[in-house]
Amino acid sequence: MKFPEKVEIIEVCPRDGFQNIKIPIPTEVKISIIDQLVDCGFEWIEATSFVHPKAIPQLADAAEVLQSVKQKHAGKVRFIALAPNLYGAQRAIECGADAITFVVSASERHNMENTRQTIEQSITAFTEVCKIKSNCKVRLAVATAFDCPFAGPVQPEQVMKLVAAGLTAGADEILLADTIGTATPLQMEALLIPLLEKYPQLSFILHIHDTQGMGLANIVTALNLGLTRFETAAFGLGGCPFAPGAAGNIATEDLVNMLHKMNIATGLDYGKILSAARSIEESLQISPLGHMARIAACRA
Amino acid sequence: MKFPEKVEIIEVCPRDGFQNIKIPIPTEVKISIIDQLVDCGFEWIEATSFVHPKAIPQLADAAEVLQSVKQKHAGKVRFIALAPNLYGAQRAIECGADAITFVVSASERHNMENTRQTIEQSITAFTEVCKIKSNCKVRLAVATAFDCPFAGPVQPEQVMKLVAAGLTAGADEILLADTIGTATPLQMEALLIPLLEKYPQLSFILHIHDTQGMGLANIVTALNLGLTRFETAAFGLGGCPFAPGAAGNIATEDLVNMLHKMNIATGLDYGKILSAARSIEESLQISPLGHMARIAACRA
Repeated sequence: MKFPEKVEIIEVCPRDGFQNIKIPIPTEVKISIIDQLVDCGFEWIEATSFVHPKAIPQLADAAEVLQSVKQKHAGKVRFIALAPNLYGAQRAIECGADAITFVVSASERHNMENTRQTIEQSITAFTEVCKIKSNCKVRLAVATAFDCPFAGPVQPEQVMKLVAAGLTAGADEILLADTIGTATPLQMEALLIPLLEKYPQLSFILHIHDTQGMGLANIVTALNLGLTRFETAAFGLGGCPFAPGAAGNIATEDLVNMLHKMNIATGLDYGKILSAARSIEESLQISPLGHMARIAACRA
Repeated sequence: MKFPEKVEIIEVCPRDGFQNIKIPIPTEVKISIIDQLVDCGFEWIEATSFVHPKAIPQLADAAEVLQSVKQKHAGKVRFIALAPNLYGAQRAIECGADAITFVVSASERHNMENTRQTIEQSITAFTEVCKIKSNCKVRLAVATAFDCPFAGPVQPEQVMKLVAAGLTAGADEILLADTIGTATPLQMEALLIPLLEKYPQLSFILHIHDTQGMGLANIVTALNLGLTRFETAAFGLGGCPFAPGAAGNIATEDLVNMLHKMNIATGLDYGKILSAARSIEESLQISPLGHMARIAACRA
């Protein structure tokens, strides 16, 4: 297989991880964990989500978190915020987001459940977001790019169509998300091969959940196809309400461990990521989800 | 990548899994779990190990377990027993083992810690085992084929040398074990490519632990190189005393889930494997180690 020399990892624990924690996390704890993650060497960190506090009360402090970490770490790292709609995107930009993640599902049914909008309506909103973006990068995240918890397998053509619409609307970057963590290496190839053929100039970002243990197998498959950008969450936090018992995102420390052992550079400090994972464990009082943090916890 | 149409999975939970459980498991519980595993459709199951009871008290009932399951399931499935030395191999053959797994480490230091023998002494003993094998298949398991917990990375040349010695001695089959579960896809390729080039007629068996979450990534790498035989343990039991906090073997249900979703046949009944995993959970009162069993436990 072909492996690249360098890989970029985008840390999403403060958004995708924290939003799935039921117990309220104090704002200062969130900021302190982001501080530690900044120190690991990430170029991009997804800090929060400007979603309605009724939908996700845990992230009601989005503005405070983003403004605080922006001020503390200006010039050192860039921060992403998720926005589910135009209003959220406006607030994210006002609070200084360097990039916005706007989520649209490739599955019509999942998009309706997730946002109460048709895909067409979501794309219209996304077009508006692209118009107001100013210096902020706009990332279209294609949710359920492989499988939908309601409708089953998602055909690559559905994703291709959404990617094309997103690019027409003005997306700077495209993310492909295995939202429920059920995709196989075969599904990775079925989507990525035609996508890369059609858009050889684009640097797609892959966001994979490790629900069924296939996370790193999928990463290896994607690396072999030439992908070099991945989103992961320290400690393996994250998850999907439609996959009970699921592990969350691929743990950042698990991916970094594998890549470094394969002589693939990430620019990240593995030891500091593991320390950040241990802080998450202590702060949130939850058992480690990723493999490397589990080993570290048993040794401690 | 290239994927095969069919894969053979050898179930090793009753040996590699049970031997790592500290609390004594009643013989009838072991037999009952093996009964369930037989019903899943495996062609080969590793039932026990004829090791000295002082070394592994848990498997002191090796003779009773093997004789009992042989009698119950004659003609339906074939049973493997591990033997660490000539005496163990003799006992295994007397008790009706269809195959013997004889373990020798590619790392001199690990072989000494594990068996108190040099590799040369182990090969001499293995040669004797091959002489008495009669109708029993003899499998040389190369432990620490990728990494040694004491000496670090193991060079492919060391493994090649041991494989050559094993074949000269009369081995019917060769197993390659990632004993501590730290090997990467890069290490898989570094060993498997020259091995397959030298022995294109051999059907190597891969035994991978999932300590660092790279288990299925390594399987996918091996599938792409043409390997089609793997050892796994239901429920993900197993482990290595030198890797604290480690998950054990790849969980059989995790591998079967991935393969079936990739349209790769195994001849196994996924639902029955998951049921067997749930029985292991209830009988041994331990939390699931594999991903699919964890999801099933949360849903129950």
